[in-house]
Amino acid sequence: MTRSAIRPIVRISADETTPVDDALVVEQPVEFRLSGVPVAVLMRTPGDDESLARGFALSESIILDPTEFVGIERAGTTTDDDRWDIVLRPGVQVDPEQFRRNTYTSSSCGVCGKASIDAVRIAARPLPPGPVLYRRTISEMPQTMRKVQSEFDVTGGIHAAAAFTPDGELVAVLEDIGRHNAVDKLIGRLARDHWPLHSFVMMVSGRVSFEIVQKCGVVGVPMVCAVSAASSLAAELGEELGMTVIGFVRDGSFNVYCGAGRVHD
Amino acid sequence: MTRSAIRPIVRISADETTPVDDALVVEQPVEFRLSGVPVAVLMRTPGDDESLARGFALSESIILDPTEFVGIERAGTTTDDDRWDIVLRPGVQVDPEQFRRNTYTSSSCGVCGKASIDAVRIAARPLPPGPVLYRRTISEMPQTMRKVQSEFDVTGGIHAAAAFTPDGELVAVLEDIGRHNAVDKLIGRLARDHWPLHSFVMMVSGRVSFEIVQKCGVVGVPMVCAVSAASSLAAELGEELGMTVIGFVRDGSFNVYCGAGRVHD
Repeated sequence: MTRSAIRPIVRISADETTPVDDALVVEQPVEFRLSGVPVAVLMRTPGDDESLARGFALSESIILDPTEFVGIERAGTTTDDDRWDIVLRPGVQVDPEQFRRNTYTSSSCGVCGKASIDAVRIAARPLPPGPVLYRRTISEMPQTMRKVQSEFDVTGGIHAAAAFTPDGELVAVLEDIGRHNAVDKLIGRLARDHWPLHSFVMMVSGRVSFEIVQKCGVVGVPMVCAVSAASSLAAELGEELGMTVIGFVRDGSFNVYCGAGRVHD
Repeated sequence: MTRSAIRPIVRISADETTPVDDALVVEQPVEFRLSGVPVAVLMRTPGDDESLARGFALSESIILDPTEFVGIERAGTTTDDDRWDIVLRPGVQVDPEQFRRNTYTSSSCGVCGKASIDAVRIAARPLPPGPVLYRRTISEMPQTMRKVQSEFDVTGGIHAAAAFTPDGELVAVLEDIGRHNAVDKLIGRLARDHWPLHSFVMMVSGRVSFEIVQKCGVVGVPMVCAVSAASSLAAELGEELGMTVIGFVRDGSFNVYCGAGRVHD
């Protein structure tokens, strides 16, 4: 039930490179089941899992009243296998149609973080050792992205994903209300015009989650940078894949979670 | 293919109430199919849908190479029914297991925004005309929430959802890397201790999406406030349900997208 994890990272500014211990928000998949049938796989921060299950069951109309919810019981056999049975009050009938309507199947087949990472490793493309970028090139990417973001300033509510060359040249910016959609739109555009993708750097306007590193790994993008934080599982997966994952690119400095070899000294 | 929508809102500060036209980011569901089988329902901003389909197919390992992707063809019969067939190169074999692994089923059964709203309306609880809050109470909620957010300052990467009484008393704050998980955790906690929920106000740290308004509607929370923007579909659904939806609660002012009657004059 750890909500943040300490990880050694490298903090890089214009003239300094400092190894520090950073606290990353923990991201771990959890599976909820009803009568043995999986009804949801959620990428969540551990803690308050019973509240999460009760709230999910209510807000997704699986149950109508909190008294129908008794609790959750571990269905997995080990403590890092987060599969849980939702236990309902005896006699409560749940419409099987509700199961189907509410079934989310994660794109990673595993439910503990380790299994998720293993599943992605199989699907991922091998990454080259390069490219290598100057630190200034990385620091300037968010500003370049924002300059051409057409919608953000109008609505204040849209995410962006951009691709850069190792020289810092902007190749494309795509926007969407969903972070993962912006990444998929960018991948789709690049795949049409510039396949393969192993010489590009991706910049995202928000945070780096497991799923974003997964998507980049599967299509072979070797470096992903973000304006905000990376999750624990994103950093672990990036390291496993040999990817460079960078966060908090702000005010001339940034945090390298893994793959610091692609940042020029 | 509209990416932002103009909507009349009410801008409220300590001493002024100003009706203005605001630009909201458009959020609309899209369904992608393979051989007639739905493989994804995504809540996305319209535009670059072919890039989205190509990128999704690649990053979710449905196809291995962009040359396997020919294009998308409308499967729905009307222009607001966003169902699209992904057309693959003749001879490309897609493992049916991939279908199952990548199937997301939206909790709302419709695929155009109108059908989604209709589906939620059926599941939603009737909302009372109240509560009514002073504008100052609303303005102070984000700061109160942040004060007790234990993890945000450590990791900088976590979302929060909080419940307040109409007097501005904080009832609970729950955190998660996922915005929807934070909302479900809060609903689950409140449902255990304070059911029914029709006298509470919810405050979220990020944006208000369709799904957050949907979750609040289903469990009967009459008012949802956010530090950031609301999407077009969130505002439309909130209005349809008689809910109050408020965004950009910052620096003593905020935007009321619908349900201004719950804000004291």
